Amino acid sequence: MRRFNDLADLSIEELDSLLELAGRLDRKPEPRALEGKVLSLLFLSPSLRTLASFQAAMVRLGGGSFVISPEMSIHGLESRDGIVMDGPAAEHIREAVPVIASYGDALGIRAFAERSNLADDLADKRFKELAALSDAPLINMESAINHPCQSLADYKTMDDLAIPKQGGRFVLSWAYHPRPLPLAVPAATVHMAALRGMDVVVLRPPGFELPAATMHKARKAAELSGGSVTETADRRAAMESAHVIYAKSWSSTRHYGDQPGDQALREELIDWCVDEPWFENAEPNCRFMHCLPVRRGVVVADRILDGPRSVVIEEARNRMVAQMAVLYRMLKG
Amino acid sequence: MRRFNDLADLSIEELDSLLELAGRLDRKPEPRALEGKVLSLLFLSPSLRTLASFQAAMVRLGGGSFVISPEMSIHGLESRDGIVMDGPAAEHIREAVPVIASYGDALGIRAFAERSNLADDLADKRFKELAALSDAPLINMESAINHPCQSLADYKTMDDLAIPKQGGRFVLSWAYHPRPLPLAVPAATVHMAALRGMDVVVLRPPGFELPAATMHKARKAAELSGGSVTETADRRAAMESAHVIYAKSWSSTRHYGDQPGDQALREELIDWCVDEPWFENAEPNCRFMHCLPVRRGVVVADRILDGPRSVVIEEARNRMVAQMAVLYRMLKG
Amino acid sequence: MRRFNDLADLSIEELDSLLELAGRLDRKPEPRALEGKVLSLLFLSPSLRTLASFQAAMVRLGGGSFVISPEMSIHGLESRDGIVMDGPAAEHIREAVPVIASYGDALGIRAFAERSNLADDLADKRFKELAALSDAPLINMESAINHPCQSLADYKTMDDLAIPKQGGRFVLSWAYHPRPLPLAVPAATVHMAALRGMDVVVLRPPGFELPAATMHKARKAAELSGGSVTETADRRAAMESAHVIYAKSWSSTRHYGDQPGDQALREELIDWCVDEPWFENAEPNCRFMHCLPVRRGVVVADRILDGPRSVVIEEARNRMVAQMAVLYRMLKG
Repeated sequence: MRRFNDLADLSIEELDSLLELAGRLDRKPEPRALEGKVLSLLFLSPSLRTLASFQAAMVRLGGGSFVISPEMSIHGLESRDGIVMDGPAAEHIREAVPVIASYGDALGIRAFAERSNLADDLADKRFKELAALSDAPLINMESAINHPCQSLADYKTMDDLAIPKQGGRFVLSWAYHPRPLPLAVPAATVHMAALRGMDVVVLRPPGFELPAATMHKARKAAELSGGSVTETADRRAAMESAHVIYAKSWSSTRHYGDQPGDQALREELIDWCVDEPWFENAEPNCRFMHCLPVRRGVVVADRILDGPRSVVIEEARNRMVAQMAVLYRMLKG
Repeated sequence: MRRFNDLADLSIEELDSLLELAGRLDRKPEPRALEGKVLSLLFLSPSLRTLASFQAAMVRLGGGSFVISPEMSIHGLESRDGIVMDGPAAEHIREAVPVIASYGDALGIRAFAERSNLADDLADKRFKELAALSDAPLINMESAINHPCQSLADYKTMDDLAIPKQGGRFVLSWAYHPRPLPLAVPAATVHMAALRGMDVVVLRPPGFELPAATMHKARKAAELSGGSVTETADRRAAMESAHVIYAKSWSSTRHYGDQPGDQALREELIDWCVDEPWFENAEPNCRFMHCLPVRRGVVVADRILDGPRSVVIEEARNRMVAQMAVLYRMLKG
Repeated sequence: MRRFNDLADLSIEELDSLLELAGRLDRKPEPRALEGKVLSLLFLSPSLRTLASFQAAMVRLGGGSFVISPEMSIHGLESRDGIVMDGPAAEHIREAVPVIASYGDALGIRAFAERSNLADDLADKRFKELAALSDAPLINMESAINHPCQSLADYKTMDDLAIPKQGGRFVLSWAYHPRPLPLAVPAATVHMAALRGMDVVVLRPPGFELPAATMHKARKAAELSGGSVTETADRRAAMESAHVIYAKSWSSTRHYGDQPGDQALREELIDWCVDEPWFENAEPNCRFMHCLPVRRGVVVADRILDGPRSVVIEEARNRMVAQMAVLYRMLKG
């Protein structure tokens, strides 16, 4: 594997094999598999799980990693093209990316969304520009519109819990958050659940519809897997017999890049905080999923997060396990 | 070993065996002992020795580690219970701790004292709350009232220097510092020296008495080991025939959490700076110990730190050596 | 090897053998050569390449490293001698350096120039003071007047490209930059190219002459190697038949430590930005070298950096490769 950028790039067989490998490496460690191998980690936005889980994954396989973020260079990294660099930044991303890549056997890049132009973010313009600066094996550690490591971990988490593929009902629900957040996780998640053959419902208030291209991609995956993808603003209808509710906040797509417009819509929606009453017509052991970090009492009530429905810690741990498989495939002999 | 939280949790035999192991791993490295093993390091307060020595210890044993501190999450980590997280912090410690723990085979936590309520700090309330969030093997990397890694290193340092156990005289002396500091090191140190069978004198000005519970715990250890624990404000009496002076500043226990009250007392005490005249009736080669960092010319005179009495670098190096033994016991097959 | 501080400390045979080792370790990895070995990295100024390349080098050889910078201690590291530390800094470099060194098998220190007194910087006063605080094997990761890791990497880069030693023409050119920068790279580079037997021309505007001691050291190296060292302000004369132009900005030596004086001179020199016309009388495939970070459109035009002349990424990668050889020599068996 040369690039791990999108679950959609994998065949079903490749995905199954990757998940099988992840489970095997978790049960039967191979602490010398990647000895002497180096993973370069470039974080253009902050991180906790991604930072920790990739470092841990490399150690478990006998290799190592190093971490670079813009503040490690002198006054940050410039990213604009054709600019005369007479301001504070002393280094351009056009040098930084290939240099960092040259020290590793693979390169992980985290590059959040600009959130000013929806078409650019849907095309993952920024991440593709960064990726084009190096031909090293590359891992998308979250871009404007994708988060394949999270999706692989979430897929495995549902497998571990024996949540049904065919006939499993997966609700991806928008949730309140004081600020507009990127589309990466919801876009990756709706596709992942569709790919898994589940009946996916996107539950979101008006103005927070997922982009047409995102829904189209998920529906294409559902066609092949035997799943389905629908959307609604009706919470009760969405939650009917649900096996999973995956909560996440995201920007208004109607007001993308328009902060006041988004805010006006958003501030009416503080009741979009997942709590026990949401589950009344769901499957009895309906699970609560979230990629973390999560704002308690805002996105979800404490009693849900601290109760038996929540599998957020399992999802987070599976980040490491899933990434071990990706790294093994990419770097092993 | 599942938890390394307090030297008091170890039997004498366990402590001896841990120190023996530390010495052996230092003399005869085992660079594959912990291959593929990961130590998760969570620093809720800054650190230099702890940060460096744990990372180095894991590498020497063939494993690795990763470091997380609050600024790595988005706008820090929330720690208040039951709060609606609509402020800056995007993640709660209730998720962060179990997630970080899930990536490692053991978890080290550094959590300084709140220093607002003495009873809470004596009960190590904050550290216990954090520790309760995970059932991973746990290392106390300094809490409100303990610092077992420092104490194990200091114990070994005195052994290395053949400082007598029975009959050895150990002065734990308060020293001046412009700000009130936690009780962790003095509380751990008085217990450690008593456990080692030494005659321990706590030398401190009025208002800086160690808490009754701390003295009681040390005296219980002395009863078993054949040592003794006394306290005084009389420097000359304390230093009589001393083998070691261990300097440390700490908060006024009379004005705990009351900064102006502490300050009023403290500002009269700038002559509590260890210097050569202190040693005039001590053993000729009486040693100077300190856990570092230390303020030169404030806590201790340059000529002491730079002279033959000082063993502060040996203590610091023994942090790594002692921790290798703890990690080996905790993580090795 | 106990110290890697200056290429001038190596005999030609030692240098050749180090370069041969670097090439061999790059082609034939030895992922267990340094198992259990630790490199302590102390950064007193920011870094990207040095930070990443040393960490990666240690992982490739089976060991590991840890990184300390002043902000990891409480309120930074004090460095003034004899000071009463009642200000913000809680730790002195006199403790920090030996402690950090004690955790590693070798110590790397990066300490930039003070740039207030030229004689002090030429004598590498600051770095020597730091180095004297520990007797551990030591690597100069850039000091006021030297950068041996960069020079070793640059030497190897020219070997890799088969740029002639005897008869090879090497132009070290001053370039514009908005701020005065240290002399470390130009001083190390003029010596390295002379040592390699090349005909070295230092191209710089009036006021930016390299110090006499620097030129003298380079000329001594040239005498032994059969190279030569000259200087000029005449760009066209300098570039005649050049095989390499190595661009770097540095402080005015006429106004050293005098920021307004330097600025007055500098602001007339914004046309010292390397661009294609500079190469018109050079060798057709004359290369562009720079140690990075580089300011695009200020030090060099985009079309040079992005074009076939530039070997800046190769230089940066060779940092890791060269350092692997240094570490292997220093730490292996």
